[in-house]
Amino acid sequence: MSKTQTPKIIWFFGLPGSGKTTIANHLKKRLIARGVNACVLDGDRLRKGLCNDLGFDMVSREENVRRAAEVAKVFWENGINCLCSFITPTYKCREIVRGILCQNDLMEVYVNAPLKVCEKRDKKGLFDKARKGIVPDFTGISSPFDPVGKVHLELPTHLMTVEESVTKCLEIFFDD
Amino acid sequence: MSKTQTPKIIWFFGLPGSGKTTIANHLKKRLIARGVNACVLDGDRLRKGLCNDLGFDMVSREENVRRAAEVAKVFWENGINCLCSFITPTYKCREIVRGILCQNDLMEVYVNAPLKVCEKRDKKGLFDKARKGIVPDFTGISSPFDPVGKVHLELPTHLMTVEESVTKCLEIFFDD
Repeated sequence: MSKTQTPKIIWFFGLPGSGKTTIANHLKKRLIARGVNACVLDGDRLRKGLCNDLGFDMVSREENVRRAAEVAKVFWENGINCLCSFITPTYKCREIVRGILCQNDLMEVYVNAPLKVCEKRDKKGLFDKARKGIVPDFTGISSPFDPVGKVHLELPTHLMTVEESVTKCLEIFFDD
Repeated sequence: MSKTQTPKIIWFFGLPGSGKTTIANHLKKRLIARGVNACVLDGDRLRKGLCNDLGFDMVSREENVRRAAEVAKVFWENGINCLCSFITPTYKCREIVRGILCQNDLMEVYVNAPLKVCEKRDKKGLFDKARKGIVPDFTGISSPFDPVGKVHLELPTHLMTVEESVTKCLEIFFDD
C-alpha cells in the first residue's frame, strides 16, 4: 500500500445494523497501523453535532447526506482518506453524494445484509421501536431503501466477518 | 514537537483580509513537513460547499460558525490538528465555538490587523464593493466585529510577517 496515493472516500452505505460503521472503524485502525491517514465520518455521530438540526424526513435525509459529502470532501482535499458510514437510502441521496465528490476517488461500498439479520443485531431496540411506530421514518421499516445498482464493492456482512470485509477493502482500494 | 500530543484546534479569527487563511495554510505546511498531521478549515471554502445554503445575516453567520466548529470537532476526534480560519465576528459566534469544542484543545488566535490594512490587502475588491453597498453585510464595513477579549494568542499581522506568525504558533501550540 502506498502512503502517497491520492486519498479516497470510501462511502459505506446500507440498512441500519448492516455493519457500516463497524467496518469503517476497523478499516481506519488497519490503515493507521500501516501509517496511512484515515478518518471516519459516521451518520450517528454527525446527527449529534453538525446535523443535530435535521430530522428524518426525506428532505432532511438529503440535507444530511449533502453535508456529510461536503465534509468528506474537505477531508479529502486535506489529503486524508475518509471512511464514511451513512445509510444513504435513496437514489437521490446517492446522486447527491456523487454530485459532490470526485468520481475517481469516490468508492461506493454497499454493506448488504438482509433486513432480518440487521434486526437481529440491533442492540438498541430501534427496529422494535420502529415496528411499533415509536420511532418514525426508520429505514427498512417505515422509510424506503431504494434498490442498489452498480457499486465498487458489495459486502454481504451476513456471510463475511468484519475482518474479511476490511481485508477486502484494503485489497481493492488500498493496493494491499 | 511531539507527534503524539493530543490534537489541537487552532481557531484563527479576525477581519476579512487580516491574514487568517494565509497563516493557517503556512502553518499546515510546516506541521506536515514535521510529520504532524493537520488540516485547514476555511470559511471561504466552506461557503462554497457545506455552507452554500447560508447567507451573511447574523443568524446565518452563527449557523456557519456552528457547522465549522462541528466539523473541526470531527477532525479533532479523528486525531487531526485542525487549523480553522473564520471571521467569527461576534461574541455570540465565539461562544458557539467554545460551546462545541473541547476547552483544553481549543486555541483562539486573534489575527489582528487594522481595517485600513485589511482593506489595502484586498485583491478581490470586496471592501470597495462593501463601501459602495454592492456587497451587503460585510464585516468591518456594514456588519459588526465585536471587540476581542482574552485569547491564547494575538497576531498583529501588520507588524509581523507570515513566517513570524507561523513560527509563533508553532512555539506556543506545538512545543517547537
